[in-house]
Amino acid sequence: MRYELYYWPGIQGRGEFVRLALEDAGADYVDVARNEKTGMAAMTRLLENRAVKHAPFAPPFLKAGNLIIAQSANILLYLGPRLGLAPKSDAGRLWAHQLQLTVADWVAELHDTHHPISGALYYEEQKREAKRRAADFRRERLPKFLGYFNDVLKNNPKGSKYVLGKAVSYVDLSLFQMIEGLRYAFPRTMRELEPTHRQMTELHRRISDRPRLSAYLSSPRRLPFNQEGIFRRYPELDA
Amino acid sequence: MRYELYYWPGIQGRGEFVRLALEDAGADYVDVARNEKTGMAAMTRLLENRAVKHAPFAPPFLKAGNLIIAQSANILLYLGPRLGLAPKSDAGRLWAHQLQLTVADWVAELHDTHHPISGALYYEEQKREAKRRAADFRRERLPKFLGYFNDVLKNNPKGSKYVLGKAVSYVDLSLFQMIEGLRYAFPRTMRELEPTHRQMTELHRRISDRPRLSAYLSSPRRLPFNQEGIFRRYPELDA
Repeated sequence: MRYELYYWPGIQGRGEFVRLALEDAGADYVDVARNEKTGMAAMTRLLENRAVKHAPFAPPFLKAGNLIIAQSANILLYLGPRLGLAPKSDAGRLWAHQLQLTVADWVAELHDTHHPISGALYYEEQKREAKRRAADFRRERLPKFLGYFNDVLKNNPKGSKYVLGKAVSYVDLSLFQMIEGLRYAFPRTMRELEPTHRQMTELHRRISDRPRLSAYLSSPRRLPFNQEGIFRRYPELDA
Repeated sequence: MRYELYYWPGIQGRGEFVRLALEDAGADYVDVARNEKTGMAAMTRLLENRAVKHAPFAPPFLKAGNLIIAQSANILLYLGPRLGLAPKSDAGRLWAHQLQLTVADWVAELHDTHHPISGALYYEEQKREAKRRAADFRRERLPKFLGYFNDVLKNNPKGSKYVLGKAVSYVDLSLFQMIEGLRYAFPRTMRELEPTHRQMTELHRRISDRPRLSAYLSSPRRLPFNQEGIFRRYPELDA
């Protein structure tokens, strides 16, 4: 099956967590909205038509045959077993999904470091609030999330190579992306935090060495980080 | 099976979405942390031990036999079919979960109206920022979420009684809770918005009339809304 991914064409954003799974699995997919001529119109048509079956609230969403699935963690819940990136047991899948939802919370908090007041306002219009929120994020939330996932790796009874059992899963790919994005957005803070969260650093390296993933990362399909996405580099927020 | 729910004992919070499902189904469960003598110690023991299998990042979490499941939407994904509160098909369950994750996003945004800077600071320490964020929430985000779910009800091909097909699901119970909480936190705004979102108002009434749910709502098990929870009444945020 050829999957259709719909996401804002100019940013990695939440769509990237889905892209990494599709790319690592070598899945057949099309990144619909990135077609310069027809892409945004196709996405808007589905987004604005609430009568569409399983209407999404927001991108990303995936079309798989006749099925529309929104919410990045839900898309990965669906794709995981189909791409060989999820555990086989129901209990393992719930655990993978629990971790992915915690990644989603982390992403939302990270986004709000530069947009603590409103997604509809420019960063410059909420810069003072952003400084306060980012300081809290660096001091409290970032170490808490990093420490949690580092402990999950440490305590995996099957070894610390991956978060779930002995095999790679979509959660590992998402954690790679978190480290990747955090290094871009908070380089100074991450230089301080990584040495005490070595399992995360090692996971990041292990994932970036995967052949299909590393080919993707150096391809034009991988959008660069930029100041429109979720991970943004504002030096004043990384004090 | 007797389920064990773990959540902060003094508030409805995110635990309430799980409680409503358990109560409506008449399930056998214990609200562990509300035991005044042993409850918080039992919850803390599980929260602080990262070596525990499927360690939660935060409450709520559910113990079902030997299984620990965290993240309220994930708990409902697990409980839904077991409590008769989810569709039978896989596609229907993904759709229910997609909606529940959108409720979770709504809850997170609502929480940040009174805590836009940090969950570790008092409201009074972020009151100015809260006013700005709450104004954006009332003007932009609340109508967007309300309108989305109202449209989902309107466009249900099986009728507008419930969000999914012809039968009640855990998503309907969660939407009841959203209306309930929003009326508490933003009474003026909701008086303005409800007349144009009638399907939501009607759903709220339909759910509150369910015998087991209405018995629960008037029981001491239902904690009152208060100024510690997610839904708080600060008149200055409801301008």
